[in-house]
Amino acid sequence: MDYQSIITFFMEMAGTVAFAASGAMVGVERNMDIFGVSVLGVVTAVGGGMIRDIVLGIIPPNVFINPVYALVATITSCLVFLVFYWKRQLLEGHMRLTYDRVMLVMDSIGLGIFTVVGVNTGIRSGYMDNVFLLVFLGTITGVGGGLMRDMMAGVPPYIFVKHIYACASIVGAVVCVYMNRFVGNVEAMMVACFVVILIRYLAAHYRWNLPRLSHNESEK
Amino acid sequence: MDYQSIITFFMEMAGTVAFAASGAMVGVERNMDIFGVSVLGVVTAVGGGMIRDIVLGIIPPNVFINPVYALVATITSCLVFLVFYWKRQLLEGHMRLTYDRVMLVMDSIGLGIFTVVGVNTGIRSGYMDNVFLLVFLGTITGVGGGLMRDMMAGVPPYIFVKHIYACASIVGAVVCVYMNRFVGNVEAMMVACFVVILIRYLAAHYRWNLPRLSHNESEK
Amino acid sequence: MDYQSIITFFMEMAGTVAFAASGAMVGVERNMDIFGVSVLGVVTAVGGGMIRDIVLGIIPPNVFINPVYALVATITSCLVFLVFYWKRQLLEGHMRLTYDRVMLVMDSIGLGIFTVVGVNTGIRSGYMDNVFLLVFLGTITGVGGGLMRDMMAGVPPYIFVKHIYACASIVGAVVCVYMNRFVGNVEAMMVACFVVILIRYLAAHYRWNLPRLSHNESEK
Repeated sequence: MDYQSIITFFMEMAGTVAFAASGAMVGVERNMDIFGVSVLGVVTAVGGGMIRDIVLGIIPPNVFINPVYALVATITSCLVFLVFYWKRQLLEGHMRLTYDRVMLVMDSIGLGIFTVVGVNTGIRSGYMDNVFLLVFLGTITGVGGGLMRDMMAGVPPYIFVKHIYACASIVGAVVCVYMNRFVGNVEAMMVACFVVILIRYLAAHYRWNLPRLSHNESEK
Repeated sequence: MDYQSIITFFMEMAGTVAFAASGAMVGVERNMDIFGVSVLGVVTAVGGGMIRDIVLGIIPPNVFINPVYALVATITSCLVFLVFYWKRQLLEGHMRLTYDRVMLVMDSIGLGIFTVVGVNTGIRSGYMDNVFLLVFLGTITGVGGGLMRDMMAGVPPYIFVKHIYACASIVGAVVCVYMNRFVGNVEAMMVACFVVILIRYLAAHYRWNLPRLSHNESEK
Repeated sequence: MDYQSIITFFMEMAGTVAFAASGAMVGVERNMDIFGVSVLGVVTAVGGGMIRDIVLGIIPPNVFINPVYALVATITSCLVFLVFYWKRQLLEGHMRLTYDRVMLVMDSIGLGIFTVVGVNTGIRSGYMDNVFLLVFLGTITGVGGGLMRDMMAGVPPYIFVKHIYACASIVGAVVCVYMNRFVGNVEAMMVACFVVILIRYLAAHYRWNLPRLSHNESEK
């Protein structure tokens, strides 16, 4: 296992924990049982990578070859469930703000890491020159899990309603693709990951929003 | 066609009819037209197997090579539609209880059969040693169709709200995987299928539930 | 690039523009920001083809090899967004009728073209004799994008609630498959495409509906 693989592995682990926690928290908020919470956590953590592998023809998807990701996601989800099971008040009052903030941080880290991991998987599969495919792979790895989480939980997909979520992932993927041509692979991943988290943080902090139609018409 | 293939074929047929009926009944309840009811029936019956085949790289998925499954599912769905079309009162009053009970039985049988068929497909594809993949294949074959049905019908996915639905499938898949190592293939499928149906039945009858957070906070 | 490829290319372009516009309009109506509108437009335009390619084992899906489709879909979506951004009143009052009519026309053209393109992709992949697979490929290419659009936008899938939408696609696919055996490929595509648009138009104009259960029971 070379240097690059080790870095990638640790980044993937961190992303898995972050996304599993964010998925589990959506399940907790929807009042699901421990199984539903775990499924949402695992789907959020491995769903994007699974779509990416199927699109790339990596059969069976990597998540089944290295079950450690799903295992870590399951354990993380169960821990999140237990924390809220014993400390229910964490979901209420001013603790709610902390909840939202932790959720944001978790989600941003996962988004950044998974975006660059997705781009990297595409490069290793030999599609270095197909920028469009690489950016798609990065973005779907980054937002795919959250999208599946929201569709399964029956909530409006986060990527459509909140700030410039997926845009951060797209920008990060583009940065990662182009930096790969000039600097080393690991450096490109680090910088691009940081870019995603920074954009996401700034967008949330300064309430950046993309242009949209006014709210005149009533939404159904 | 050997003994094992024949048994598998008949089990799949029974599972297809059961799942198609359960899918069609969801469509009927949602007041869909005959086409929507048929689509929901077919999706419920073949959706899980299609996801499984794509994950395994069986291209094109088996459902297109043997259209008999989709055909049987379509006929079953149309029959269900016609029954409720002519006997609308079956959806009301005390008949409602019978409806729910039939739905439960259909769904349990389909879940049990499709779980073991999924595990078996994985074993035949040569993944005997990847327990995690086999259990996933069994579970996705078992619950995938119902999940797609619920997402398409716009109802909260059954596997997240009802009893220990998917857990039964997971336990059955694990039983099937390990029994395959000690007894014959057909025997393992029979026993595991029975285990799924039993757990599902007991869970519904005794209202087993997994731990969840209390209902204090209002659901949005 | 032979004659047939050129015709197919122009048809696909027209279908892409039509479907991207229909997807973007759903996003505009749901008050999404410009990113969400673009994603919905692109998903509607390329989603069906992507599912088709994955089922056929065309890896990576064609949309990533020829990014022109996604590019055209993105530009179309942004244009639609800008039109409604500057002329908000287009969504209100009697303009609403025009909106609905344009949407219907766009959607019908896209449905017709993508249905025959889907069938054609299957034929070129060598499945000429598997009628069931070809019809599925045509239908999923035709309705898959719209289905993903509706599931992601959180609206009840159009194919389940409106007229005989998917039926038109199925009939067109069957026509396309059988005409391919008697006349040339391009002629079959033209006729089948026209059949889909005609059925769709007549169904909307004369308010054809498939039988459904009465609305006695309250929908939840």
